[in-house]
Amino acid sequence: MISVVLVEPEGPANIGMVARTMKNFGFPKLVLVNPNITRESYSYAVHAADVLKEALVVGSFEEALELFDLTVGTTGKPGKSYIPERAPLMPWELRETIRGYPGRVGLFFGRESIGLKNEELERLDFTVTIPTSEAYPVMNLAQAVAVILYELAKERPEAKVHSLEPATRREKEELVNAWRRLLDALNYPKDPERREVFVRVFRRFVGRSLLYGREVHTLIGPLRRALMKLEECGDAER
Amino acid sequence: MISVVLVEPEGPANIGMVARTMKNFGFPKLVLVNPNITRESYSYAVHAADVLKEALVVGSFEEALELFDLTVGTTGKPGKSYIPERAPLMPWELRETIRGYPGRVGLFFGRESIGLKNEELERLDFTVTIPTSEAYPVMNLAQAVAVILYELAKERPEAKVHSLEPATRREKEELVNAWRRLLDALNYPKDPERREVFVRVFRRFVGRSLLYGREVHTLIGPLRRALMKLEECGDAER
Repeated sequence: MISVVLVEPEGPANIGMVARTMKNFGFPKLVLVNPNITRESYSYAVHAADVLKEALVVGSFEEALELFDLTVGTTGKPGKSYIPERAPLMPWELRETIRGYPGRVGLFFGRESIGLKNEELERLDFTVTIPTSEAYPVMNLAQAVAVILYELAKERPEAKVHSLEPATRREKEELVNAWRRLLDALNYPKDPERREVFVRVFRRFVGRSLLYGREVHTLIGPLRRALMKLEECGDAER
Repeated sequence: MISVVLVEPEGPANIGMVARTMKNFGFPKLVLVNPNITRESYSYAVHAADVLKEALVVGSFEEALELFDLTVGTTGKPGKSYIPERAPLMPWELRETIRGYPGRVGLFFGRESIGLKNEELERLDFTVTIPTSEAYPVMNLAQAVAVILYELAKERPEAKVHSLEPATRREKEELVNAWRRLLDALNYPKDPERREVFVRVFRRFVGRSLLYGREVHTLIGPLRRALMKLEECGDAER
């Protein structure tokens, strides 16, 4: 079970936005260290008021630490004064690292102004950082939470469910063959080698387009129809 | 080159937050369709005022479309009105799909209240969605931008050199029209609404496949040839 911990968040609106993004990604457990929750927080939470209402409020960083088996601190650009023992993990490395971990995980986010203090970071098990541009590395708190939770939520099975079946290799091959037969019926281009190139271009077109099975059939239909008509027509001419 | 396009953003603060997240992830190009930029926007942009100042403001969705070779629309949870054949890509699939693509890419984000309209989504090449919880799928605009840019930024810096020119919007439109004229000549499918669906499937096929200009011409050739033959044949029958 993963909880989000906001350590002394300064903006009431940010608390609400964080609650919203937590509910968006299906992480309902929020811990707040010395927060300033106002009506504005609820207004920014929109439909995630329940996350705010059920948040656990504690009085110190140490109290929050006690709640977890594994603690992760987020840092912006590692400052000059902080020399981490280990290089911070990238968000996707964090996901791999804690995958399947059965204990209680606390994801600690610091103050909007100064983040987590060095003495706080030292108490945590891991550090994670979002790779940002040198030109402007400091993210808005709620956006940083959104990015980390998005990455962690990828492990959930529902992230992988598509309602449509991707086209199989066989279906795609049928589509390419329908195209090939059309070119043959047209005798176009006349040069067989060039005709092969035309088929290859079509095959690449099919390969790159992430078609679904149903779509393949919608595309084959007119090609077969055209072929049939052209053949009828050819017979008529003879 | 990837640009972020905000279509009729409603909140001045959100425009600023989006500018900030763009600078965080190193994507400086912002296009705004009918925005309401206020002092609040600049205050939320914090150190990304330059992104806002250099944003291109246009008066319509169509004007924004014209700026790009490849267009991507973001949608929240597929709603009831959602066209079922359009299975959206996951953000990481989008990253894989456009990796190394040398053309101009526009990432379209809709209004905070209603997102992109269906008639807008239909004009775009791809749809991407962030996998969110059933319980609360609707994300804050700036957080959705943060997640998508975070995912796309994993690829950079890449600067792949391609010698081929990506197909322009106009070229892709010509290819779709060649397909449409073929269906018309075949009178297939007979029902005009179904025929429109067949054209839409083809348009998506084209949109998703990252074609090069030269390839478009190789694909149009046989379609025009088939059309010509069918027309000759129709005349001969009369």
